Formats: sequence, structure tokens, C-alpha cells
Amino acid sequence: MDNRIVLTDYVRRMTGALMQAGVKSVVISPGSRSTPLAYAFASTDNLKVYMQIDERSAGYFALGLAKASREPVVLLCTSGTAASNYHPAITEAYYARIPLIVITADRPHELREVGAPQAIDQIRMFGQHVKYSIDFPLAERNPDIDDFIDRHINRALSVALTAPWGPVHLNVPFREPLLIDFDRPVPDSTFSERIAGEAMLDTTAARQVTALLEEAERGMLIVGDWPHDMDKKAFWDFADALQWPVLCDPLSNLRSEVPENVHALCIDHYDAILKSEVFKEKAVPTTVLRLGAQPVAKPLSLFLKKVKPSVVIAVDESPEFRDSLGIVTHHIQASPTSLFQLVVNQSRTAYTELWVRANELASEVTANYEGVPGDEGIIAKLLFEHLPDGVDLISGSSMPIRDVDTFFRKTEKDITHFANRGTNGIDGVVSTALGIQAARKRPAWLLIGDLSFLHDVNGLIATRFHEMDLTIIIVNNDGGGIFSYLPQSTVPEHFEELFGTPTGLTFEHIAAMYDAQYAAVTTSEAFQTELAKPKNRPLRMIEVFTNRQMNVKAHRDLWQQITERLEGDE
Amino acid sequence: MDNRIVLTDYVRRMTGALMQAGVKSVVISPGSRSTPLAYAFASTDNLKVYMQIDERSAGYFALGLAKASREPVVLLCTSGTAASNYHPAITEAYYARIPLIVITADRPHELREVGAPQAIDQIRMFGQHVKYSIDFPLAERNPDIDDFIDRHINRALSVALTAPWGPVHLNVPFREPLLIDFDRPVPDSTFSERIAGEAMLDTTAARQVTALLEEAERGMLIVGDWPHDMDKKAFWDFADALQWPVLCDPLSNLRSEVPENVHALCIDHYDAILKSEVFKEKAVPTTVLRLGAQPVAKPLSLFLKKVKPSVVIAVDESPEFRDSLGIVTHHIQASPTSLFQLVVNQSRTAYTELWVRANELASEVTANYEGVPGDEGIIAKLLFEHLPDGVDLISGSSMPIRDVDTFFRKTEKDITHFANRGTNGIDGVVSTALGIQAARKRPAWLLIGDLSFLHDVNGLIATRFHEMDLTIIIVNNDGGGIFSYLPQSTVPEHFEELFGTPTGLTFEHIAAMYDAQYAAVTTSEAFQTELAKPKNRPLRMIEVFTNRQMNVKAHRDLWQQITERLEGDE
Repeated sequence: MDNRIVLTDYVRRMTGALMQAGVKSVVISPGSRSTPLAYAFASTDNLKVYMQIDERSAGYFALGLAKASREPVVLLCTSGTAASNYHPAITEAYYARIPLIVITADRPHELREVGAPQAIDQIRMFGQHVKYSIDFPLAERNPDIDDFIDRHINRALSVALTAPWGPVHLNVPFREPLLIDFDRPVPDSTFSERIAGEAMLDTTAARQVTALLEEAERGMLIVGDWPHDMDKKAFWDFADALQWPVLCDPLSNLRSEVPENVHALCIDHYDAILKSEVFKEKAVPTTVLRLGAQPVAKPLSLFLKKVKPSVVIAVDESPEFRDSLGIVTHHIQASPTSLFQLVVNQSRTAYTELWVRANELASEVTANYEGVPGDEGIIAKLLFEHLPDGVDLISGSSMPIRDVDTFFRKTEKDITHFANRGTNGIDGVVSTALGIQAARKRPAWLLIGDLSFLHDVNGLIATRFHEMDLTIIIVNNDGGGIFSYLPQSTVPEHFEELFGTPTGLTFEHIAAMYDAQYAAVTTSEAFQTELAKPKNRPLRMIEVFTNRQMNVKAHRDLWQQITERLEGDE
Repeated sequence: MDNRIVLTDYVRRMTGALMQAGVKSVVISPGSRSTPLAYAFASTDNLKVYMQIDERSAGYFALGLAKASREPVVLLCTSGTAASNYHPAITEAYYARIPLIVITADRPHELREVGAPQAIDQIRMFGQHVKYSIDFPLAERNPDIDDFIDRHINRALSVALTAPWGPVHLNVPFREPLLIDFDRPVPDSTFSERIAGEAMLDTTAARQVTALLEEAERGMLIVGDWPHDMDKKAFWDFADALQWPVLCDPLSNLRSEVPENVHALCIDHYDAILKSEVFKEKAVPTTVLRLGAQPVAKPLSLFLKKVKPSVVIAVDESPEFRDSLGIVTHHIQASPTSLFQLVVNQSRTAYTELWVRANELASEVTANYEGVPGDEGIIAKLLFEHLPDGVDLISGSSMPIRDVDTFFRKTEKDITHFANRGTNGIDGVVSTALGIQAARKRPAWLLIGDLSFLHDVNGLIATRFHEMDLTIIIVNNDGGGIFSYLPQSTVPEHFEELFGTPTGLTFEHIAAMYDAQYAAVTTSEAFQTELAKPKNRPLRMIEVFTNRQMNVKAHRDLWQQITERLEGDE
């Protein structure tokens, strides 16, 4: 009996410390070894518990929750390969800077590395893909251990929430018996509070940055993937003063709720515009100021890498600033708030006008885009036009995010856009979308390819345990559509076998299995008709059959049209 | 053009070295960065390429192939989280001692840790769960690099195939462009052959072991999970000379093709017998000789841990002998062949007779076992009775392997039995079964629970690309059946929420999606009727609906009956 009390106090102390440090949600996968903590979480008020049987999907569900809530989220699983299944989501969390608090239950020392069942070496098992990893002691009645728990949990959370945010790993061993006493209260914590500063520019540094911006002849602002809770007003005030063109990645979320006064500055068609050689020659910036990650659009990356602007400033609170092009010349390691406090008043230049005009022209072309049969771009366009105010849009990797980049046009509506761009994997996307929806409670829309949907079809298991409101648009081109854009597609040998990989699968069966509202469409007209119908179940799936070859052709035709329009505007 | 030739020679050299070292099969998941190696594998004669879109399932498919073929199998994926998805199968391979050759394509240095897409730190990313990990150089025309490739690939394979066998990791960076020249031949290798010795007992050691066995008063032989290609004749000759009872785990594969002369010695009901306190008191061994892993049966583990025999010998070629009970007193680090060469002639003792008699009595009870509605034991029994000669049986973790342990009775038939017991995970089982079938080419039968089937439902994607012959018996008790046997089931609070986790899912939709022959049954009679019907598609699924509560009761009743029978035999 005393053992049970010791165990109970141990897990209740952990739960208390986690909540003290800001945890509000826990995603649990069933298992035996994790029982004491699972009980502690499930029996705690004000802690929301989500269940997922597949730990890989659980990892991404937690990732979605943490991404959308901007709060640390706990993952809990039993010992063994259950833990290994978290590795994909942890990797994404590490590079996407998401504070996952990964708790793996473990066997005690006497059952480690001796061939005991479901026992693997879990110490630091996620290697360099977590920011911090601790192996906890067994439950014990010992004030030093109480201190250890309170401090190490708070410390782990501090690490997770210090720039760059990221996942941490707590390995917690339990010895049988595993039952706890539900009536025991949370023990008093021996730690009070973490109060964290943020990196502000001092007067000298602020003057230095201001000078850099003021000296710019042809300034360009780029905003890539960026937390959706950024202070948009502060950003636009800053940009309005600068009067530079602002190239807004769809994941900057600056294309939605665009204020009237900066509407022209918001450049949302640079992916297409930068296909024009003529335009690119005129559009070379001297100074680039980038916030967030490098944008999705490959034409922009190729352009910047080629022209190597003389000043490229990356603003990033992390010392590990992202610079995949190898062109950054200045790294401002400071909070965006401190940047936005700088006032750099400039007047609009001819360079800015060049971008604004080109963007308007491209915009006219895309506005009239009608696609061709089998095309996927038109699906993204119609979807975007259909989305009402106050919803969330999640894009799959590969083609969907690129189509959203092309067709997500600046708008007054609040459509918040999410995608996994830490590592751009096609895995875990369904779960991420469900996690985002669970955190935001708004209607969510997921645009995803067939292989990506299939990869995380188990993400839907979560819908058996929790409420949701998700519409999934599955673009089914029967295989890996993005490969049709790559040089591999010019080599007939082994193309379908290694890259096309047509599965011939369709997903109406999955819809039936998960009680989803379902429709299959093959034309953009049918897709529009379907979009107009009401959603009458928590989960809805619209499967759109497209054609990989026609899709490539349609995209290339659109880019060609835009190029001609720009170059005809001389 | 020259770059392309350098790249081609590099990947052809790798492919050549892998084949030289014994690789015959490759499991590839589609991706771009891995293109050069994927091309090289796909365009090589005498190398069988399998495709799987889900890398997690691909890992387990390769594991099944390697487990069944007893040969190294290559896994190839692109960079990023694709690689992280291999972690579960790698963990299982490490503890199950399976030689997986994991190749992760990587980005070159200039694209590492700079925020480039699909780039993660892959160096040693599987940590302690691989035996060896190398980061390869980029392709280069350089004889030192040629030597490096030939030697490091052969070395990696040597490590994988040295006891204990296990997975190794090759991280191979590629710089664009990624196309190769299919017409280039494999360059000559600069390395010829690996000739490996095996650990044999010298005269002194052999005499020592012989003495240990000869001195035994009450000797017991235990054979746990053991490679299915063990020389059974040599084993049984050795056991026949010893005349000790041989407790055969179902994964020893000694319960099938049992020779007449040792039939009585083969004890297959110890899991039930060792529930009797009276029997246990009489059955304490003085010497235990164990080959392979500790058997599945918990009653045997509890018994041995309690009685702590004075001599417990583990035979294991690995220095890391498995001893989860902490009772091994002697470790013989030698090949089984060298053990079987010892001739220790003994006559049958009363101790052996005690076991033989008890096994016969238990056998009579199970032979008449008819189960109850909702019971799962009767399903395992009927399945086992139905299986023809010359098939493979794969068991899922949790309940199926335990039911097989109880109902897989010694037989003259060749039914080879497989399961993942490195870490006993419920994950990856469908893929493992498909990999085993692909290697063995015999009809395969998989007995699996609903959660485990659901966890690896994506294993079925492989059936879209390759031939197969698999029958899946899904025991659907709507959740985690094994928890009903654990102390958690006595606590009503949170039981269904955290442990039962009923999904309410059924799998006829999955059958339709994958063109499988399907039937749902709810009684043992209907199950028998269904078994009698012919298999008419490559993939067949029989879903058996059972009841977690009734199942526990039926098992406990059976054990009680056996106990009574044994104790009534005084």
C-alpha cells in the first residue's frame, strides 16, 4: 500500500509540474508500462486527454495540437517500439520548432538489456532530434527526488520553449505494481515559476539594423513559415513604413486579413512571376530582409541563390538561423517584436512599383485560370475561393502546398494556413490536421495527395475517440505526382516502378470505415458542385481524381501565360 | 556527363559490394534523393526489388524477408522523416537479431542543418539501435573512395552477420543531378570475400559443459525463439541422448516435424501445466539448459524466477546473453552446432516422466477444448488444426502468440511459426507476415488482433506491387484484449478510456479496398465453416468477432480444468 502512495505522489508531482509549466493537453497511446502516468493524466481536471492507438499518428496529432495552440503538448506511450514510432513526429517537431514533451515509460534497470519483453534501450533514443533528454529515477519517497522532478520537468519545458523551440524527451521507468490511488492530491511543488526574457535589440544594435535598412536601394521583405500568432498589425505597420514589396509565403499567414493600406505591398504571386527571365533581370534586390523560414517557392530560392543580394538579413531568435541558400550576410538574433519597434520610414520606390505591377498582372491571369481536365491547380483555386471566413487550411507536402502557394491569394478573410515544413515529409499530415482542429475548434480543411493521405490513414483513428470538424480534399493522381516535375520523369526506365508507384487505391472504403461523408469527383465542375453541398458529418472526404501528366502541362501553361503577360507589359 | 558516370560507378560499386556480401533483396520506398541507388538496384539482375510507400511498413517488410530468408536485406529511402519511419523496424531488428541493411539517402553537407527541405541530421540517427553506422562520402573519381566503399560495405555486412546479428545503417549523400547511366557495368571490386569462423567449444570447454550436464539430477531443456533454420535433427539427437524434458516454445519451431522417437520428450503444454501449484512443487529442476530466448509463457518465467535452479545454462553465440529473469549461472558462448556435438547419454529419469505424464494429461484436456462464445482460444485451436502441411504461421503480439503457445500442439506437419519477439511490439506485424511470405513463397497465415492489424494496415500497400499468398485471421475484440488479464482491469476508473480503447472499427472496408476475400464470423462453428471454404484471392481476411470478458473467463476455466486434471492424477 505504501508503494502505491509513493508511486501516486510521484506521478501526481510530475503531472503538477507539467501543468505548472504550461501543459494543457496530453496525447496517450494505450499500453501497460505507462499506466501510472496515464491514470494521473486522465484523472486530472483541466487537462485534456486525447487517445490514439497508433503512436506514429499520435506523435503528429500532438504536433498539430502544439503547432496550433503554441503551447507545449505531452505525448505518452509505453515502452518498446511504441517509443520508436514517435521518431518521425519528433524529427518534424525538432526542425519545425514545436514544443513536444515526449514521455516514454520504461522498464526499471533490472529489466533493461536482458531480453525482457517490450524493453529497448530508450535512453537518448531520439538522439540529436530532441533538445534535451532525461532518464528519470524510479518513484521513491525522498525529498531530493521530489526536487529533481519539479526542477527537471520545469527545466525540460524551459528548454523546449527557448528559441528555437523544440521537442524534449523524458524517459520514466516504472516498477510493477502499476496501480495508483486516485484520491491522492497533487503534492506541493518546490518550484514556483519560470519568467523568461526575450531577445531585444539594444540601442546600438537597433541603430545598426536601422542603418542597414535605410541604406537599401532596392529593398525586399520576405516572410516565410512563421508562427500564426505573430502580431500581424505590428508587422504591417513596420512594412508600411518601409514601403518595400513583401513576398508572403502562404505559411506566413500574411496573405489573409490583409489591411487595405498595405494591400498592394503584399506580393502573393512571386512563384509565377519569377519564372520570367526578363522580370528577374529587372527585379534584383540589393537588400533582403527575411523573417521566418525560406519560402516554399522554388523559383524564389533559385532567383536569390543566383543573384546573391549584397545584404541578406535573417531575423531569427534562434542562433541556428536557417539559410539553405547560403546567402545570408547578417543574422539578427532577436525577437520580431524588437524588430517591429524600429521605425524606418521610406517612400515607395520604382523597385517596389515594379513588383506591385507584376503581381497585379499575374493576379489577373490566375483569377481567370480555369484549368484543364485532370489538373490539380484548379482544385486548389476553387477550394481557396470557396473557403469561408474563420476556417483553417492545412496543406499536404509535395504538390498541395505548391498549389496553395500559387492559388492562395491575398484576402480580407481569416483563413489560417498550416503545413509541416520542418522536414516537408508526406507523413503524419492527417494527424497534424486533426491535432490543429482539436486545438483551434474551427472548421478545418485539409488539401492532401493520395500517397500522403494513405501514409497517415491511421490518423483517422483519433476520430473514433474525439470530436472533430474536418473536410479532407484528397487529390488522387494515383501515385507520386511531384516526380513528374523532376528530371527523373524524362527517363522512361523504371519511372512508374520507382517514382510513379501507382497503387490503384481509392478511398471510399476508408470513408465508409470511418463514417465519413464522401464524394468522388473527376472534374472541376463536379468539385464545385460538391463544395456547394452542406457538410453533414464530423468528417468529410472529397476525393478528386486527377492526372499526373495533364497536371504538369496545365501548370507549365499557366506559368507561360503569366510570363507572356509580364513580358508583354514592357 | 562525366559527373553522371562518376555517380553511376559509385552506386554500381555499392550495389556490387552489397550483392557480393550476400544481399539478394531490396525494399525501396519512393523518393527523389535516393534516385541513384534506386536506379542501380532496379536495373540489376538477380536482385529482387520490393516497393512500399509507407517506410514504417517497408522496414517491417524487410524485417520479415530477412527473418525468413536468414539473409541480409537492404532498405532504401529518401532523406528526412522517411528515415525516421524506419526506427520501429530497426529497433525490432536490433533486439530480434535481424540483419537489416538500412540505407538512408542524404543531402550533401551544404544542405545539412541550414533549413533545406527534407534535410535532417541523419548521422547515427538510430543511435544504439543499430550495430554500426557509417556516413558515406559523395561520389568521387578516387581509388581511395572506391576502396572505402568496397571495404565499408563488406565490413557493415560482416558486423550485421556477426553474433548477435543485427541492423546496420549506411547514410549516403547525393548531390544533384541524380540521374545515372544505365549502361555502365559494375566496377571490379577491390575486395574478394569474407570467410567467417563460428564459435566452437575447445576440448576443455566441451568437457566442462559435458560435466555440467552429466551432473544434473533433474535436468530440463528449454528452447525459446530460435532461428527456424536450426538443424532440428542435430538438436533432437542431442536431446534424445540427454532424455530430459524439452520445453519447446512455439517459436523454437520444435513442435512441428517432431520425430517419433522424441515425441514424448517434446513438452508443449508447460504454460498450462505450470499453473498448478502442486505440480510446480514436484517439478523443480536442478539444471536448466536454455537455447534461444526466454519462452513466451509467463507461467514458466514466474516458476523459474521463483525456484532459481542451481544451474541455469544459457547457450548463446552473443556475448549479450538474454536473461530477463536474472537466474543464468553459466553462459556458453558458442554455436549450437558445437553444443550438439557433445554426446551426453543419460537414461530417462522419474523427473522426465513427471513432465511427460503431465503433458499428456494437459494435452487430453486441450484436445477436447470447445471454448465458449466470444472466446479466442478456440479460434487459435481450430486454426492450428486446420493448417495443412507446408505452410507458415505468423502470430501477432499480445494475445495471439499466447493462444498459439497454448494450442499449437506438437505435430508431424511442417508448420513454421514466426513472430516479432525482439521487442514484442504490436506494430509492423502485417508487413512482417508479407515479408516472410515473399521470402518463403509458401502459403502464409497470420493470426492477429484488431489493434495490431489496424496499427499496420498500411502493410497491405505492398500487396499492390507484389504477388502474395496470405490469409489473415483478425481476432476483433474491439480493443486491447490483453489488458483484461492485467491488474488494471480490476480498476473500473478509466479502464475503457485508457486500456480497452474500443475503436468500433471493422475491417470489411479494408478488405474491399485491397481486393481481399473477406468473411466475418462470430462463432467458432462459423469460423470452421469459413476455414473449409477455398481461398480464391491472393489476400484473404477472416474477421472473428470475440468478447474480451468471455475470453478471459474461457482461458481461466481451461487452466483450472488442466490444474484439476493434473492434481486429480495423484
